[in-house]
Amino acid sequence: MANTNMATYLQTLLPSPSRKELTTSVIPGLIASIAGISKALKSAHHVSQVGTANDFGDDQLNVDVKSESIMRSYIAMCPSIITASSEEDPHEVRIEHIPNTPPTEEKYAIAFDPLDGSSIIAPNWTVGTIIGIWDGTSALNQDPSTRQVATVLGVYGPRTTVVVAIRVPGSEPILFEAGLDDDAATVQLVRPEVRFAFPPFKTRYFAPANLRLAGESKAYMDLITHYINEKYTLRYAGGLVPDILHMLVKGHGVYVSPVGMGKAKLRRAYELCPIALVMECAGGKALDPETGKPILEKPITHCDERGGLLCGTGVDVDVAVKALLG
Amino acid sequence: MANTNMATYLQTLLPSPSRKELTTSVIPGLIASIAGISKALKSAHHVSQVGTANDFGDDQLNVDVKSESIMRSYIAMCPSIITASSEEDPHEVRIEHIPNTPPTEEKYAIAFDPLDGSSIIAPNWTVGTIIGIWDGTSALNQDPSTRQVATVLGVYGPRTTVVVAIRVPGSEPILFEAGLDDDAATVQLVRPEVRFAFPPFKTRYFAPANLRLAGESKAYMDLITHYINEKYTLRYAGGLVPDILHMLVKGHGVYVSPVGMGKAKLRRAYELCPIALVMECAGGKALDPETGKPILEKPITHCDERGGLLCGTGVDVDVAVKALLG
Repeated sequence: MANTNMATYLQTLLPSPSRKELTTSVIPGLIASIAGISKALKSAHHVSQVGTANDFGDDQLNVDVKSESIMRSYIAMCPSIITASSEEDPHEVRIEHIPNTPPTEEKYAIAFDPLDGSSIIAPNWTVGTIIGIWDGTSALNQDPSTRQVATVLGVYGPRTTVVVAIRVPGSEPILFEAGLDDDAATVQLVRPEVRFAFPPFKTRYFAPANLRLAGESKAYMDLITHYINEKYTLRYAGGLVPDILHMLVKGHGVYVSPVGMGKAKLRRAYELCPIALVMECAGGKALDPETGKPILEKPITHCDERGGLLCGTGVDVDVAVKALLG
Repeated sequence: MANTNMATYLQTLLPSPSRKELTTSVIPGLIASIAGISKALKSAHHVSQVGTANDFGDDQLNVDVKSESIMRSYIAMCPSIITASSEEDPHEVRIEHIPNTPPTEEKYAIAFDPLDGSSIIAPNWTVGTIIGIWDGTSALNQDPSTRQVATVLGVYGPRTTVVVAIRVPGSEPILFEAGLDDDAATVQLVRPEVRFAFPPFKTRYFAPANLRLAGESKAYMDLITHYINEKYTLRYAGGLVPDILHMLVKGHGVYVSPVGMGKAKLRRAYELCPIALVMECAGGKALDPETGKPILEKPITHCDERGGLLCGTGVDVDVAVKALLG
């Protein structure tokens, strides 16, 4: 039922016959996988390291491995998803579909982080799933601004919600939030059109990631002092999905994750590009703090490519980039 | 089943016959109410103001009202709970039990916040329930350090967990975390004994509440700069329950909520005293930032009494109080 309803809804938003697989199979299938992960997390009281690491060297949790496995099982049921790669298995591989699945006209590549926010899973804070959907058979060496056509975020908190962004060439950007029922049998539309508010803002929010860097960077410390003196409200979960959803729901926010001497943490394929699409569809900005240019301007050349992030309300992102780059 | 198991477990921890109602009826009943609230939140996709305010003038949300109603229905089933008051209905009133309920030898007063974290419910962040359990028929004008005998916290995130603190005169303090299954039919013990870690700490965390005050208070700003320069990790949900649980699970943390010129936000009956008991049972401290004295040292004189909070790992709370009070 969830998929039927979601598919019907998506087709009203994007009636193009050339996107039929995207609206009736790919996105509804990915939302079903989010419902599956949500269910698994509800009983995962014992969060533990499984003793393995992903290819990036991050310790893997039992819930990471389980979420990856659930996502993969749903992806295998979508014939138009040709390749996939993920933070837990960062290689673009061809999906093995059920034998004799007829080829589809539409072809998509998926890049996903099945469970983002490892550090806050044990204390039972809201965590999420991040999925980027790309036209064609690879997310690599493409123009992200036109080839990454959709993002699906799963949000696991007191309830389970999804944020869906779709921007296909020739159509208006789409961004909405929907709630999944406990059994995923139905989807409730919560915010049919998600957009940042316009000034004057009732309350302004900031989320400073990698704050330890402010001890070494006067520019970052000055920016933090600016937020405090201007009476911005601090909200920082330390999980990209809850931090992003907070901005979207409040209609304002700025997320600042500058890069220091060490290696940047956020992956372009699994985190930065999908989030940047959401921000742009909301009328906000997502810039690379090292260049001041849009995240989506530069192709991803390999699965482990990383960077920082300045995103949120346009006017605040502009202030942040100026403060950090001068 | 959940209650039977929890009651059995609580009786092994606290076999005293004079606490039979506490272990077999009061705490298991309150945990069942938390399971009820969790279930209600899962389908509460449309968080909205109901157009009313509680006696404190706070706008009430539909989920606040629903959670209050669920808690009250469970409280009415516990014959030894004689009075209750809550953030949503801040008057100590006698509980109407089922007619002809025989009086019990044990008598308790309950002070609770059914749904703490109003500002972060809409963005689907983890929120919680806070319940203080007091010996006798009132939480007012008592010595909190001996008369508030237990705290139950409900944590609504990707899963539903409870934190239970019990400290009755003559027994060792008890503090554990348990996970509720989706249908609340069983309770899983997650951390049988919750205690702050000892130095050296692997990672140190800080949660600065009311951060806007740092714009006016040099002492608070200097403390924030200290955390940044000392490379503490920022985690701040802005919900007391998730911020407290984060410290307990990580084994380290300091939560700083100083008071400025305006009225303090945290209620002593519904937030400060129950949280302070949890902190002390974990081997940490909870001090009043205005006096530097333990939160639990001073009786609550009325339901709307408020204050600030410095709590967490003892050594860090000492540093914070010295920084703020000199």
